[in-house]
Amino acid sequence: MAALDTVLAKIDGNLDSALGRLFKLVEIPSVSTDPAYAGDCAKAAEWLAAELTSLGFETSVRKTPGHPIIVGQAKAARPDVPHVLFYGHYDVQPPDPLDLWESPPFEPRAVEAATGKRIAGRGVADDKGQLMTFVEACRAFQETGGLPCHITFLIEGEEETGSPSLPAFLAANADELKADMALVCDTGMWDRETPAITTMLRGLVLEEVVVHAANRDLHSGIFGGAAINPIHVLARVIADLHDEKGRVTLPGFYNGVAELPEDVAGHWRELRFRESDFLGEVGLSLPAGEQGRGVLEMVWSRPTCDLNGIVGGYTGKGSKTVLPAQASAKFSFRLVGSQDPVKIAETFRAFVKERLPADCRAEFISHGASGAVQLPFSSEALSRAGRALQAEWGKEPVLAGCGGSIPVVGAFKRDLGMDTLMIGFGLEDDRIHSPNEKYELSSFRKGTRSWARVLNALAL
Amino acid sequence: MAALDTVLAKIDGNLDSALGRLFKLVEIPSVSTDPAYAGDCAKAAEWLAAELTSLGFETSVRKTPGHPIIVGQAKAARPDVPHVLFYGHYDVQPPDPLDLWESPPFEPRAVEAATGKRIAGRGVADDKGQLMTFVEACRAFQETGGLPCHITFLIEGEEETGSPSLPAFLAANADELKADMALVCDTGMWDRETPAITTMLRGLVLEEVVVHAANRDLHSGIFGGAAINPIHVLARVIADLHDEKGRVTLPGFYNGVAELPEDVAGHWRELRFRESDFLGEVGLSLPAGEQGRGVLEMVWSRPTCDLNGIVGGYTGKGSKTVLPAQASAKFSFRLVGSQDPVKIAETFRAFVKERLPADCRAEFISHGASGAVQLPFSSEALSRAGRALQAEWGKEPVLAGCGGSIPVVGAFKRDLGMDTLMIGFGLEDDRIHSPNEKYELSSFRKGTRSWARVLNALAL
Repeated sequence: MAALDTVLAKIDGNLDSALGRLFKLVEIPSVSTDPAYAGDCAKAAEWLAAELTSLGFETSVRKTPGHPIIVGQAKAARPDVPHVLFYGHYDVQPPDPLDLWESPPFEPRAVEAATGKRIAGRGVADDKGQLMTFVEACRAFQETGGLPCHITFLIEGEEETGSPSLPAFLAANADELKADMALVCDTGMWDRETPAITTMLRGLVLEEVVVHAANRDLHSGIFGGAAINPIHVLARVIADLHDEKGRVTLPGFYNGVAELPEDVAGHWRELRFRESDFLGEVGLSLPAGEQGRGVLEMVWSRPTCDLNGIVGGYTGKGSKTVLPAQASAKFSFRLVGSQDPVKIAETFRAFVKERLPADCRAEFISHGASGAVQLPFSSEALSRAGRALQAEWGKEPVLAGCGGSIPVVGAFKRDLGMDTLMIGFGLEDDRIHSPNEKYELSSFRKGTRSWARVLNALAL
Repeated sequence: MAALDTVLAKIDGNLDSALGRLFKLVEIPSVSTDPAYAGDCAKAAEWLAAELTSLGFETSVRKTPGHPIIVGQAKAARPDVPHVLFYGHYDVQPPDPLDLWESPPFEPRAVEAATGKRIAGRGVADDKGQLMTFVEACRAFQETGGLPCHITFLIEGEEETGSPSLPAFLAANADELKADMALVCDTGMWDRETPAITTMLRGLVLEEVVVHAANRDLHSGIFGGAAINPIHVLARVIADLHDEKGRVTLPGFYNGVAELPEDVAGHWRELRFRESDFLGEVGLSLPAGEQGRGVLEMVWSRPTCDLNGIVGGYTGKGSKTVLPAQASAKFSFRLVGSQDPVKIAETFRAFVKERLPADCRAEFISHGASGAVQLPFSSEALSRAGRALQAEWGKEPVLAGCGGSIPVVGAFKRDLGMDTLMIGFGLEDDRIHSPNEKYELSSFRKGTRSWARVLNALAL
């Protein structure tokens, strides 16, 4: 194994070709939620498998009931080093609304901005760019004498839809996948200069409800006033889901939600998080969640109920005097602590059914359910990774919470007995899941260098 | 002028060619609300103008700020007869959802059903088929010796969007359009065997609201719990618009809404309206409007607030953990009595604004506002028309209310001092505004014959 400096120099020398590879991956529209893109998901998986194979990984693309999973294995130059499992995902969110993109979402390009060069495109931050920082770190090691740790890659294509195929895959391949620890690159920095290691993740319950009323769309002149309107029904359900203090009203919803431990609360207070900047950047000024709690608490350690979409009746231009036969909405619940995702989905469905008037029925579609994750605040691996990140960025990493959900991290702990180091280089303004998603060139370059340092530190 | 029997025989003899002409008109997708169909609206206007010209009417197609209006004039054979203004509209509702149509909406076809032959297609009942009953009655007169009354046609193309161009057109052309009375064929029969003359029409206020929140779509993991969700905001507005007894909660909404006069209530009771049949036909069992009122009252003589459409966030397949930047809904209010449409629109907007939390703004789009219409329950013309309808159908016509809105009828009274005879041959199950709209062949044939009898009776 070469000296770390040689590896870091190799990373910098590879930067242009590494960017070209990232562009190739971003060009594949691997939108996992829409069946129309299933072929592209398979293409992204094959592309990644070929990359890993070329880097000396024994790689296979495995079929699942959904999109394929890639597994790649390679040994370190030395035998007595840790074995790490790196997890990433090649699937991306749908790009719509398309008309808000400044350039086509699947034609990545480099853009000069005030803060430096950045790359624009769907999935460039979540998670293709992040994933490729680790791949490029492995490349630099392989090109300079070999890997410092034994490494297994596990790359899935259903993260954006709640990873439905992953639990069964982990169970069926536990022996193959079990390692000393897992590494995940799907989280963010604290700010542009300060790295972060994420130790809390919210869980996620995704429920779609279709309320059916009349057997066909009706004329509101003929039936208006007498026929039940499913949009009204859905609106009342939504309005009932929060009380006037912003708390979710589902019975038992807060079971398993603890107040923040004082030491964590203290660490967070020291971060001097600027609520007005966080909200101001997206055009908002006041936190809209539970009254009496700070924004960081709201998004890191409090559960939520949100609407991700609603549709019913005529939504084109102009007017149409129709009473729709149905209306539907997509709900998501972010979970924390030990909230039970299955129980919350059940309670939600009962809550909706209780509010259905005569002549209405509800159809429920689950898009996934996973609990929250809490990792240790201190460990040998965490300390080594922390020092490695400090060496690259010149600042001690923040031990952060994360409002998003990475269900696999819970499964690693539960099913494979592994803790996970969540280290990522995304920035708050990366617009992931939104039009004009971007990833900073500095995130890509220094992220790749960070992984080289972390792998090196774990192997010492 | 020929004897009535000769005219009626001519109508029956023309039936096949008359159907062919109706098909030609239905084939033109004159959807007024969608700018993409503006060319088709113009085409429908030109087609009708050519028809009227060929029947000896001095016809012109007049430009408006929206879709064109057709005016056609012809004199009766005798000078000392009434002058009637016939109003109809050539525009139709959008055909969506397209996948629910059994045959393409703009490819009309004749279908055999248990109740006899019917014609299927968008607009075949509302209002192209109805409009053509009057045109075909005029044809039969012209082919057998001339018209019994002086007739002016006024055919517009914006009825389905609240007739925005019509008031100014009526004002600018009052002298040309003023007649002894107006005739409108855009209403329905009481049932399959019983004709109706409609004497009450509800008004209509159409308001669209777009609630804007953040300056872009947000990731619900990063911002969920802290960022305001415009779907929540809209849902609360919708939920607040009715109280638990089904009454609309807008302040002053019921100003100008009177209880039904006892004589009218008595006439309606005699109709033995079967609520369970009316609702059962569309898959419903219980009236959903104001508690303590009958269904006929709900749809004929009570005001409403309804949602015609709602959309926000991700509405495709699967899930997307997005907090949308905006959500919008289309509201419609049906008005009765002397409810003021302008005031109700203003009150509604204030109601929405009061419920906007910090960081949200509402954009309002009016799609029209018109008051309710109440016509006399007795007059010489009404008696003559009633006897004419009885002669054709063998049953005395019902003096009906109508839940829908035909704004022009109010304008005829207000601006041109004319009462209107509203006679139409639609049936409750015609699915107007819905997929698989149809018009019975018997409505078309006997409707045409009815107009011949009515025109004849008015001229005696």
